[in-house]
Amino acid sequence: MNAITSSAERKVHVPLGERAYDILIGPGLIARAGAEIASRLKGRKAAIITDEHVAPLYLEALVKSLEGAGIVSAQLVLPAGEKTKSFEHLMTVCDKILEARVERNDYVVALGGGVIGDLAGFAAGIVRRGVRFVQVPTSLLSQVDSSVGGKTGINSRHGKNLIGVFHQPDLVLADTDVLNSLSGREFRAGYAEVAKYGLIDKPDFFAWLETNWSAVFAGGSARIEAIATSCQAKSDVVVADERENGPRALLNLGHTFGHALEAATAYESARLVHGEGVSIGMVLAHEFSARMNLASPDDAKRVEKHLKEVGLPTRLSDIPGALPPAETLLEAMAQDKKVKNGKFTFILTHGIGRSFIADDVPASEVLGFLKQKQPQ
Amino acid sequence: MNAITSSAERKVHVPLGERAYDILIGPGLIARAGAEIASRLKGRKAAIITDEHVAPLYLEALVKSLEGAGIVSAQLVLPAGEKTKSFEHLMTVCDKILEARVERNDYVVALGGGVIGDLAGFAAGIVRRGVRFVQVPTSLLSQVDSSVGGKTGINSRHGKNLIGVFHQPDLVLADTDVLNSLSGREFRAGYAEVAKYGLIDKPDFFAWLETNWSAVFAGGSARIEAIATSCQAKSDVVVADERENGPRALLNLGHTFGHALEAATAYESARLVHGEGVSIGMVLAHEFSARMNLASPDDAKRVEKHLKEVGLPTRLSDIPGALPPAETLLEAMAQDKKVKNGKFTFILTHGIGRSFIADDVPASEVLGFLKQKQPQ
Repeated sequence: MNAITSSAERKVHVPLGERAYDILIGPGLIARAGAEIASRLKGRKAAIITDEHVAPLYLEALVKSLEGAGIVSAQLVLPAGEKTKSFEHLMTVCDKILEARVERNDYVVALGGGVIGDLAGFAAGIVRRGVRFVQVPTSLLSQVDSSVGGKTGINSRHGKNLIGVFHQPDLVLADTDVLNSLSGREFRAGYAEVAKYGLIDKPDFFAWLETNWSAVFAGGSARIEAIATSCQAKSDVVVADERENGPRALLNLGHTFGHALEAATAYESARLVHGEGVSIGMVLAHEFSARMNLASPDDAKRVEKHLKEVGLPTRLSDIPGALPPAETLLEAMAQDKKVKNGKFTFILTHGIGRSFIADDVPASEVLGFLKQKQPQ
Repeated sequence: MNAITSSAERKVHVPLGERAYDILIGPGLIARAGAEIASRLKGRKAAIITDEHVAPLYLEALVKSLEGAGIVSAQLVLPAGEKTKSFEHLMTVCDKILEARVERNDYVVALGGGVIGDLAGFAAGIVRRGVRFVQVPTSLLSQVDSSVGGKTGINSRHGKNLIGVFHQPDLVLADTDVLNSLSGREFRAGYAEVAKYGLIDKPDFFAWLETNWSAVFAGGSARIEAIATSCQAKSDVVVADERENGPRALLNLGHTFGHALEAATAYESARLVHGEGVSIGMVLAHEFSARMNLASPDDAKRVEKHLKEVGLPTRLSDIPGALPPAETLLEAMAQDKKVKNGKFTFILTHGIGRSFIADDVPASEVLGFLKQKQPQ
């Protein structure tokens, strides 16, 4: 059975040995999901995990597509939002997968954004100690970030993503048509992660984005190109360091500050979503690098200018409502898992596309910097 | 820091590449745990997970031993018994590990039998997507079986061990002194797994056990020898097939029947414990093989004779109370995870030490066999 491949479609192969998989990026992939899956995987049973926002838009089309390829599916629709990444919902998802008698060669299909992907992927990683996993990411953020690399997990009262496994998908279907149904705010939040890949080590890509960002927002081939470049960039890092012992930490550029801000706003999406936290965090990381005399202040200004231009928040004062004092933000950063033996590990930079891992950043410097940045 | 090694001590190295680890087997290992850990691992924080039966006997000694080596520990004492392998307790264990700020190079220490090892190992495998894990198995069963090979997990209402991960320990300390505190029934249940290694592919070991079993029960060097041989046997299988895609299934000799019997008795340890289910299951597997003309009925008789001699149950009628009808047992076997595309996968045998994987056993044959065996 051969699937029809659109000429606009791009494929990124993630070469992880026996855990290698393909990411298909292009229009109309949900309608072709059954054929794409059936041509690659043996199992004919699936449990589709999705949320109440995505289900009315795409669930029926996906179920039909699977049916057309002889794949029987059970479906579970969960509440939307970060709070769904809980132990309670994990238990519900595992139970649904077992009830559907999904065996090791069958699969869990995540239809949704990062929350659904992280939760369903975690469940796929632990039911029967691992069943196959197909991602159908429906947000820009999940297409360029959480669907590449195999990190799955849930949140704990001690912090975000503190409980999970590495479980690589067997196939990722990034249908670019679905991005048209995103709100402007959701698309921008995902775009922060796209820009991140330029800032880590692809200065030319960042410059290309500065010129072409409006075409990426408009859709079409520039959008597909930006997503494919992002997936390829993430794939390169993940292949070099699948279990995050070293260079994979670069992907956390902007995330240590970002996670602290998400915690400080109690993960209330009305105030701040993940990509917005990363946007502010990336500007802060560049400004902090300048303060430490590691990079030119001009680079921080250039980063801020671009993110602001696309409509992303870039400063603490862009977050609606009061923030806790600098000391509390620092404490939240210390709880983040990128901490070893009590020392701060930060992703800092020598300039655009020249990020590096700094594993002994003094807490006092961070505190001083945050106090200076706090609008209070 | 060099740990003092008793001359009676045996070491089994499990060569799993970057996940390689040592199993130390011998007397007095709890008192030396701190030194053994500190000489191998960098972290100086630990979360000890144990149960209410084991804690009064060994927890204080273990905490002191760690303290003496500069390792700070938090402790969590859980209810004893199979029901502790639940989502609820998994959540409690994860929370305790995070509360203790155990980071990736720190460790979770499982002090207890298979239940504690499976639960704590699962938690160690998912907190921060994997922290280090040290096993201090306190039952014969966990010393020879569950502490080797990296399988961890909890039970679901759909069946045993259906949710979990592969997470190899960094060190296993099998203190043979602690086996003196086991009841005769607990020791015998563990012995069933010892005998299993002989039955799988070590006919000489099985013959050695037929001669030396009472010395193994008495303690001393024969016991250490039997445990080391068992760990080595399991290690050989695990190294050949870490993720259970092939030959590792041989370790399930007696387990498909055994798990069904455990489910049929609602995991009530007063009626049947795991090793007893395996004992009956091994006899059934040999008898079923004889019925299928694969092995001589004399082998089944020899297996039953030995297991009966050490005091293990060998027949369905040895289980106190009524069992469900054969159809229900068959259904429980079908729910077991050793099922692919609806077909039964069984470990059958051509004779003592000549087990093999049969992946297309007809359900009708199994049903006929079970009806014949049912005492009702």
